[in-house]
Amino acid sequence: MNGVNGPQNGQPHLDHADGQYFLTEAYKVILEEVLCKGTDVKEKVCDWHDPEELSALLDLELREGGESHHQLLQRVRDVAKYSVKTNHPRFFNQLFAGVDYHSLAGRFLTEALNTSQYTYEVAPVFVLMENVMLTKLRSMVGWPQGDGIFCPGGSVSNMYAMNVARYRAYPQVKVQGLWAVPRLAAFTSQESHYSLCKAASFLGIGLDNVFMVKVNERGCMIPEDLDEKIELARSQGAVPFLVSATSGTTIQGAFDPLDRIADICDKNKLWMADSLAWNPHKMLLAGLQCCVFLLKDNTDLLKQCHCANATYLFQQDKFYDMRMDTGDKSVQCGRKVDCLKLWLMWKAVGTEGLAERVDKVFKLARYLVREMSKREGFQLVNEPQFVNVCFWYIPPSLRGKEGNNDYQEKLSKVAPVIKERMMRKGSMMVGYQPLREKVNFFRMVIISPHISQEDMDFFLDEIERLGKDLYNAL
Amino acid sequence: MNGVNGPQNGQPHLDHADGQYFLTEAYKVILEEVLCKGTDVKEKVCDWHDPEELSALLDLELREGGESHHQLLQRVRDVAKYSVKTNHPRFFNQLFAGVDYHSLAGRFLTEALNTSQYTYEVAPVFVLMENVMLTKLRSMVGWPQGDGIFCPGGSVSNMYAMNVARYRAYPQVKVQGLWAVPRLAAFTSQESHYSLCKAASFLGIGLDNVFMVKVNERGCMIPEDLDEKIELARSQGAVPFLVSATSGTTIQGAFDPLDRIADICDKNKLWMADSLAWNPHKMLLAGLQCCVFLLKDNTDLLKQCHCANATYLFQQDKFYDMRMDTGDKSVQCGRKVDCLKLWLMWKAVGTEGLAERVDKVFKLARYLVREMSKREGFQLVNEPQFVNVCFWYIPPSLRGKEGNNDYQEKLSKVAPVIKERMMRKGSMMVGYQPLREKVNFFRMVIISPHISQEDMDFFLDEIERLGKDLYNAL
Repeated sequence: MNGVNGPQNGQPHLDHADGQYFLTEAYKVILEEVLCKGTDVKEKVCDWHDPEELSALLDLELREGGESHHQLLQRVRDVAKYSVKTNHPRFFNQLFAGVDYHSLAGRFLTEALNTSQYTYEVAPVFVLMENVMLTKLRSMVGWPQGDGIFCPGGSVSNMYAMNVARYRAYPQVKVQGLWAVPRLAAFTSQESHYSLCKAASFLGIGLDNVFMVKVNERGCMIPEDLDEKIELARSQGAVPFLVSATSGTTIQGAFDPLDRIADICDKNKLWMADSLAWNPHKMLLAGLQCCVFLLKDNTDLLKQCHCANATYLFQQDKFYDMRMDTGDKSVQCGRKVDCLKLWLMWKAVGTEGLAERVDKVFKLARYLVREMSKREGFQLVNEPQFVNVCFWYIPPSLRGKEGNNDYQEKLSKVAPVIKERMMRKGSMMVGYQPLREKVNFFRMVIISPHISQEDMDFFLDEIERLGKDLYNAL
Repeated sequence: MNGVNGPQNGQPHLDHADGQYFLTEAYKVILEEVLCKGTDVKEKVCDWHDPEELSALLDLELREGGESHHQLLQRVRDVAKYSVKTNHPRFFNQLFAGVDYHSLAGRFLTEALNTSQYTYEVAPVFVLMENVMLTKLRSMVGWPQGDGIFCPGGSVSNMYAMNVARYRAYPQVKVQGLWAVPRLAAFTSQESHYSLCKAASFLGIGLDNVFMVKVNERGCMIPEDLDEKIELARSQGAVPFLVSATSGTTIQGAFDPLDRIADICDKNKLWMADSLAWNPHKMLLAGLQCCVFLLKDNTDLLKQCHCANATYLFQQDKFYDMRMDTGDKSVQCGRKVDCLKLWLMWKAVGTEGLAERVDKVFKLARYLVREMSKREGFQLVNEPQFVNVCFWYIPPSLRGKEGNNDYQEKLSKVAPVIKERMMRKGSMMVGYQPLREKVNFFRMVIISPHISQEDMDFFLDEIERLGKDLYNAL
């Protein structure tokens, strides 16, 4: 190979053959380190280092000159080595996990084609594909007609919902701003995702105008309290416009009672069953990021709400039907292609295959709960409604001490210590958090269909191994 | 290979070896179709089909069952075949073009590692890397200290700027909404990107509160008119808070006079030289999307403005310094890793190599302008300030007819016809648009360092070939 070690003809790294040679070598490293070792249960899920130490290991600094092919491949290897293996069967830390190789092929193809989703002209395949994908997802929700768009994250989808709901209620906001309309009020449950609050703040509505509706003991929105909060908002002079309900809350995986909430929204003419945020990068394994915002509306509300009619992209005298261009539905300009990975995976596995995967992780979650009940020291926060299994691990020294003054304080320290130990050991990853009056508990989420009952057994064994000496050590 | 043609043990496509085999086969197709053929000047830049026709060719529908390995590879081939080749040396249609193979390796690695940028815990390497990258980019702007974040697109960066500027002026907006503060006014030039308007509308400020400052004949903001517009806003009772200036406008590539604008902003205490939106996915070839929002502020303004303190991600009792977690700087929750591709490319080429590439395309732009001046029928809209070369092609039949009543109308139809012809032929891609009183003209942008003087010559020849018979045909 000529020139792989540096500049050539005064034009650094502009030779396609050299570049492709490097890419193929890098591909082999990725295959070996991330996909083979990274999914091997005998390997660590993470190779933990504190920030200062990791900085020193990586030599991240950027310099005037370039590096050799050999050095760069070592960089690829190091990035892989010190990154968390989210494809690993012992990664339970987030609402994403595992790998689908067809999706991954779609992602590589997306990156290589490097285009933007905004016009049919530069993304003909992806504009058509996004439409098909949105139609399919809508049909599963029960909306044969409607609209939608792929967004960079579920939080952005929630912002879209809030903005479109606001536009439907008061279209003049787009032009005149919020000063032209009365104070608005949005509603969501105490256990909903924090993105609703971020959206309200970003969109100029303000956190105070998000009313947090109470949840029952299982984490589901209480419809009666929604009624009361709507009245409360009105009594304060605010105009309710949106209720955001959740199917599978972030921590407990709780399902809000959609039908009863929808009735209240209908009665009050509030936006709720009008749109949906759905993240196929979670349980469908499409890969980050793959998020859709779906609407029931088929009157072009989304486009009317967001359009700016930029002449340099959306020429009125195009030789094709410019309704194909999607850019004016978006608040972004350039928009990453996120549909191909989901589409290719769906083509590979079929709707049936996706359903089987989901069934499999539900079964594993039930298995885990059953096994927990056979062991001392595992206490569920609630009977799981979804694939989130929230529990406290009670070390032997704390068992039967629930009456003690310092029980809750000591219990709150158990999960952080176990978490630190598992990270430093690299044996697995699972999250924990407090929730209102409840002290720190683990949130186990079972997402990846690549895992097995043995992984569930290992999980319980490992929690015991890491925590059984507590709280003596605290 | 076992099981590549369908379900195995009732678990469709869950075998890692099978999956990796498919991925490698798909990689080979990508290499051949997208990277070899897609960069070959003898191949088409696009294989144009009208939407209905392309739909029929692709069979996009999603079904109950999955497809075979063989069929799926054909899908990969078809997606590649019918997609626009943005890496092709004749793709001049957008502000991105060309390919850097180190960046692409970084993108593949990012996809395989599939994590989210929000916490050090799940993205240790990328949290450190993002910091280094932001520091480097800030240092080039002249801000040794400060803050920043990678955003999904420059439009989102502009929204961040608007929100942080608003928060600095009126922190109570975050909690109380815009009703608690006076009507706000933002300022930008008539030729700035439309994302400023989208941002104002999304953030609840309203399009009417974006004052469009006049530009001079070359497309640069006129500082005197900014002064006037600020007075105008105040006379209407609005409070100016932000001026957005542009270095390299979207169409003409014009540079606003930053120093003079900054003086006005200082005098009026407006946000302007406080932050910067920069898209390395454009001229730096980092690949879509790679966009940074940089701030001069080092008082944690960004985090204060956007934080929600979600307990399940940002536990206060973490075993590492949770200031490493970046999630609360963002309005997203999950955030795609966009730093690795830029970092790996920078390591490969060095600052010098990146500079050489930029110099090369500037030289090519000047070459193109020189060659244009030697030919009849090419009329510059303005002397280029950047790599955007905006021009009208005047077909022989229109030359010398500037005085005719229907000249402008006929001229306006030239670019759309040439564009359609080049798309159907697949020979090259370049954009056109009207701009205020100016009728449709081409915007040629020279971005990819892989192109040559021969490509510039071809461009001019091809415009002549496609347009010389006009407007007889109109």
